[in-house]
Amino acid sequence: MRIKLINPNTTVSMTEAMGRCARRVVAPGTELDAVSPATGPASIEGYYDEAMALPGLLAEIKRGEQAGYDGYVIACFGDPGLYAARELARGPVVGIAEAAMHAASMLGTGFSVVTTLARTCGMAWHLAENYGMKRFCRNVRAVDLPVLELENPQSDARRLITDECRRALAEDGSEVIVLGCAGMAELCESIGREIGAPVVEGVVAAVKQVEALVAMGLRTSKRGDFAYPLPKSYAGHANQLNAA
Amino acid sequence: MRIKLINPNTTVSMTEAMGRCARRVVAPGTELDAVSPATGPASIEGYYDEAMALPGLLAEIKRGEQAGYDGYVIACFGDPGLYAARELARGPVVGIAEAAMHAASMLGTGFSVVTTLARTCGMAWHLAENYGMKRFCRNVRAVDLPVLELENPQSDARRLITDECRRALAEDGSEVIVLGCAGMAELCESIGREIGAPVVEGVVAAVKQVEALVAMGLRTSKRGDFAYPLPKSYAGHANQLNAA
Amino acid sequence: MRIKLINPNTTVSMTEAMGRCARRVVAPGTELDAVSPATGPASIEGYYDEAMALPGLLAEIKRGEQAGYDGYVIACFGDPGLYAARELARGPVVGIAEAAMHAASMLGTGFSVVTTLARTCGMAWHLAENYGMKRFCRNVRAVDLPVLELENPQSDARRLITDECRRALAEDGSEVIVLGCAGMAELCESIGREIGAPVVEGVVAAVKQVEALVAMGLRTSKRGDFAYPLPKSYAGHANQLNAA
Amino acid sequence: MRIKLINPNTTVSMTEAMGRCARRVVAPGTELDAVSPATGPASIEGYYDEAMALPGLLAEIKRGEQAGYDGYVIACFGDPGLYAARELARGPVVGIAEAAMHAASMLGTGFSVVTTLARTCGMAWHLAENYGMKRFCRNVRAVDLPVLELENPQSDARRLITDECRRALAEDGSEVIVLGCAGMAELCESIGREIGAPVVEGVVAAVKQVEALVAMGLRTSKRGDFAYPLPKSYAGHANQLNAA
Amino acid sequence: MRIKLINPNTTVSMTEAMGRCARRVVAPGTELDAVSPATGPASIEGYYDEAMALPGLLAEIKRGEQAGYDGYVIACFGDPGLYAARELARGPVVGIAEAAMHAASMLGTGFSVVTTLARTCGMAWHLAENYGMKRFCRNVRAVDLPVLELENPQSDARRLITDECRRALAEDGSEVIVLGCAGMAELCESIGREIGAPVVEGVVAAVKQVEALVAMGLRTSKRGDFAYPLPKSYAGHANQLNAA
Amino acid sequence: MRIKLINPNTTVSMTEAMGRCARRVVAPGTELDAVSPATGPASIEGYYDEAMALPGLLAEIKRGEQAGYDGYVIACFGDPGLYAARELARGPVVGIAEAAMHAASMLGTGFSVVTTLARTCGMAWHLAENYGMKRFCRNVRAVDLPVLELENPQSDARRLITDECRRALAEDGSEVIVLGCAGMAELCESIGREIGAPVVEGVVAAVKQVEALVAMGLRTSKRGDFAYPLPKSYAGHANQLNAA
Repeated sequence: MRIKLINPNTTVSMTEAMGRCARRVVAPGTELDAVSPATGPASIEGYYDEAMALPGLLAEIKRGEQAGYDGYVIACFGDPGLYAARELARGPVVGIAEAAMHAASMLGTGFSVVTTLARTCGMAWHLAENYGMKRFCRNVRAVDLPVLELENPQSDARRLITDECRRALAEDGSEVIVLGCAGMAELCESIGREIGAPVVEGVVAAVKQVEALVAMGLRTSKRGDFAYPLPKSYAGHANQLNAA
Repeated sequence: MRIKLINPNTTVSMTEAMGRCARRVVAPGTELDAVSPATGPASIEGYYDEAMALPGLLAEIKRGEQAGYDGYVIACFGDPGLYAARELARGPVVGIAEAAMHAASMLGTGFSVVTTLARTCGMAWHLAENYGMKRFCRNVRAVDLPVLELENPQSDARRLITDECRRALAEDGSEVIVLGCAGMAELCESIGREIGAPVVEGVVAAVKQVEALVAMGLRTSKRGDFAYPLPKSYAGHANQLNAA
Repeated sequence: MRIKLINPNTTVSMTEAMGRCARRVVAPGTELDAVSPATGPASIEGYYDEAMALPGLLAEIKRGEQAGYDGYVIACFGDPGLYAARELARGPVVGIAEAAMHAASMLGTGFSVVTTLARTCGMAWHLAENYGMKRFCRNVRAVDLPVLELENPQSDARRLITDECRRALAEDGSEVIVLGCAGMAELCESIGREIGAPVVEGVVAAVKQVEALVAMGLRTSKRGDFAYPLPKSYAGHANQLNAA
Repeated sequence: MRIKLINPNTTVSMTEAMGRCARRVVAPGTELDAVSPATGPASIEGYYDEAMALPGLLAEIKRGEQAGYDGYVIACFGDPGLYAARELARGPVVGIAEAAMHAASMLGTGFSVVTTLARTCGMAWHLAENYGMKRFCRNVRAVDLPVLELENPQSDARRLITDECRRALAEDGSEVIVLGCAGMAELCESIGREIGAPVVEGVVAAVKQVEALVAMGLRTSKRGDFAYPLPKSYAGHANQLNAA
Repeated sequence: MRIKLINPNTTVSMTEAMGRCARRVVAPGTELDAVSPATGPASIEGYYDEAMALPGLLAEIKRGEQAGYDGYVIACFGDPGLYAARELARGPVVGIAEAAMHAASMLGTGFSVVTTLARTCGMAWHLAENYGMKRFCRNVRAVDLPVLELENPQSDARRLITDECRRALAEDGSEVIVLGCAGMAELCESIGREIGAPVVEGVVAAVKQVEALVAMGLRTSKRGDFAYPLPKSYAGHANQLNAA
Repeated sequence: MRIKLINPNTTVSMTEAMGRCARRVVAPGTELDAVSPATGPASIEGYYDEAMALPGLLAEIKRGEQAGYDGYVIACFGDPGLYAARELARGPVVGIAEAAMHAASMLGTGFSVVTTLARTCGMAWHLAENYGMKRFCRNVRAVDLPVLELENPQSDARRLITDECRRALAEDGSEVIVLGCAGMAELCESIGREIGAPVVEGVVAAVKQVEALVAMGLRTSKRGDFAYPLPKSYAGHANQLNAA
């Protein structure tokens, strides 16, 4: 089975870290490729950034279809382009926020999301609602750290996030933590050990979810909303983007 | 007051029709410009089409800000890029699905949306929920006509849509109709006369809504989710798209 | 176009202030009349007060229909009698809570209502739900000031309300403020400047909303719940009230 | 214990029928008085009718307080004035729609309301939501019979309603029926026998509910929304209505 | 009329206290029997405890049917086995959480539940949702006292609970208190007097609710979910449990 | 990794079929044991049956803990005892309805459940709500076939279920099918091929879900609701059941 993980931002060191985390959990026989698009923003911290990441991200899905991948992971906690990607793909496409929230809902009665910038908290709430996970989501908390600081060894990221996770357990009455940024993938295990509660990280959760769906022989339904896109004529740049 | 209406597809004849409809309802002193982006698909009938329309649409918002517009209308019934546009704009940005549903909710206790392709019905439901309008939305119905057929004088569009509106009143128990495609703007008045119930069309509804908000001196809040985008470095094409 | 604004309480100085605010925002060609009923309580601060205001308020709608008004505003934040008024009126009828909440939902992802007495907070929550605006309403806050104190120049109203608005932004994570009393109409602009966030006031929001609906040629649906009242025989006082 | 049942319309024969039904179910020691207001419409079939019934209805609550009643029933399926009545009363006040829906929710997993005119179906849905009973309410159906026809021995009311109840069980998958009009009180038992499913009628349900609350020593909370109304000055007729 | 109250735990002194409270409020002519099952845990403080209490509890319903009881109360705040009991019983079955929340919703606009152990708060929220009472439930609070400590005269139970009720009124904005444990039945009246707000206790609320339903001639619907259980063959112990 | 699948009914041929299906999808290195309890009903078709299955089911979890299993599947579509099992288990416990609905929600925008007896449809709706999956669940349909008939080669089960799945796609507008009974596990693949849409079967979905959670190192949270049960004294039979 071949799974393609797409980090929709163009920071390759982050993509490589995600690949490392993902490869640690896949089953024997699962091949996992982690890529960044050729075009897009270095990090995604708002709706405009998401919009600018979409053409590159969707081009990767199209390339993936040609290469015959069995399924896809969109590895940014806003799950940008998830529905558009499902239109393009034959196999399953799973977002990391989606997978993490679903997994968390099976381990306790409520979770808190701990994310980077406060301005993305609304996004996480919105996703929780879309996925039916709002009833499990007790709070969304931000440490107010830019995404790229997670990669900076000088930053205090690990301590700040661990402290926020502890506050989430104590103040929100949550039983499980969801890490709200793909850049936190490598912190997951150590935080879990420190706080004594399950910590769910979306990159591995989504990879395992796609692996499970493919193993069951399940694909994206092509009846209704996720049918393949209709052919269109394009004006300007979009022509090339679409052909990508 | 200057309002910029952006039709996110690139079919200029449709944009011009929207402009005509909008100009008929604006107050004295309101200047209305209707544009299509330089780049994007000829029509929008799914999530992938929306994604491909975003760079061109958002470039128009950015150009609009430089030109000093007071507010914006996004004139496609899926309201693509609404939140990203709000991040970019100082003044209000209103989507046509948003405005039409809000208006309909004040004229009766329930409405039906009548749209073009069945594959976009899910989108309309999703928007109804996002805007808090699900409690008013009794049904979303499609006549299964491609968007561009609305412009074809040979097509039976007017009759098909009018018949579906009648069925909506009779079968859904709806009291109001919302037309679910910007391409239906010019059909609104005649359908309303024929079916004897209020028919709300989003292009004029959104233009009047933006006009009202600007007249009250209200702008998009820059606290929280709709704060201006953070500066980013971009790789590849996105660099030019962002600079557009 | 002629719009009738009805302040359902009988404090005429308040009605006049509302008229002043409304006239500042209407489009050229819109005629705005602001009235109080001949009968009713001096202020409305609960469900009993609302009930006692209804006969006078509805008599003003009936008088308005005879005089040929195009639309109506009910200018009390509880939106008393809104559905009964819609049964009586041919044109649109909009409540000020309704209009303010709708407008606020387009300017940010969440708002706080700041109102007068704590005992009316439940009412505001209830309206938010009825209008589908609960998902945007982060909190309802009271300064615990009787409605008529808003008119008292000796009262500290402006400062108390401004402080509460500031707390709403900081503590509720709200991005927009909705002023929860028609008596606050004249404070709106200055508070907005002081707190640096959009402040929506219902009297002007409702007047512009009615103006927009009338400009679009839309009326209250007479199919279903808002059909004209059925003729009835009346016993006692109600006979005169009905004939009013 | 003394309970006052108020039929808010002025059709005394209907009030007397309700009194007969109620007296059949009260416990030994419970005194039940059934009254109509001195002023108001002969029947209530819409929001305007409700508004016109309120002054007379609330005067009866005030008179009841002076006479020392322990609790009240509002015997019209729209539960008009319920919250205003709770402000005025020391003891519990229960509406018949409220009581019937609550009772039905304990006897099966879903009920259908069968009411008179189609134009009041929206009201019943609205009440179901207010009381938290929407999850149990599978449908609201109307036989399209004016309320006063229920009293006409020539009308086919009993058969029409029984047939609609049967359809509700078969088509809505409901397990329980709620009769949606106080005028149906005397039909309840025979319909239940005919259709072989529980049929809940609100007049007796509300009387028993008030009796239960009073027996438990419970009263309307005077903290918050249902605190006694604040004293007000009144203009015009309302002065007399308030003094009534 | 004969009502059987089943305390699903096996602490007989608690069962007797519930019987005393219930008998104080029943109407003349109502016979109330309070029993504990022959088998089960001494107290119920979690989902496993509930599961282990079910066989004994359901055996008591079956015995009750043979003895011809008219209705049943399940007297543990988690309402364990409510739906299974409804399958077995001809007459109504009411849970004490169900009855208390319903009653509270008629006395104010919001209530707080005050219960024993924090680990059961999730259960109470879950029940509030099942019964449609979530919109009235402002908070669920625990004093963190084991259930059996309520019976210990040395424990500080009364003071701890009264203090928590006071905090609920002040901090949650609640207007009514619901006591969240059958073991609190005898504390209800004195707490109500001390805090000056209605305090609803489920044992008496459920007994009065069953009494009301029986007086109205209403039984559990046997259409759909609560039809009698289908005959089954059983392996092992369950054979005896089923025959009990 | 060792996973224990518990079929809570005592029909061993069904348990063996589940085991076969499950073993086909597990990853290399996963050991899957499928068991039935020593005590309980032969099939589960209602709330009473669920209650009678719990002691045997929970005894299997306890035995599993002693044997060191890494996770558990509860293989009956009502997911009986799921929360009690989570209290007992260190590792994850997943129900088959839970897993199937979650998986289905990632493959399309809406699914229909196709189950055996109509009397269990309410249960499926209830689970959909508990898991946050109600927004994806378009309908729950029954073929009205007793569970054990699925095993009868003479029964028309495969055709009846396939036909109902086709109707679900056509009439409910669903994009995905969820099979609502563990006994349907072996039919899944062929139905999927026939109807041309994804068909999700819970036994394999839950096994893969547990496998994924264990691979990620995640366990049931022991903070809050799913903490280990408190020690209790037991009366009667329950003593042995608890010791089992």
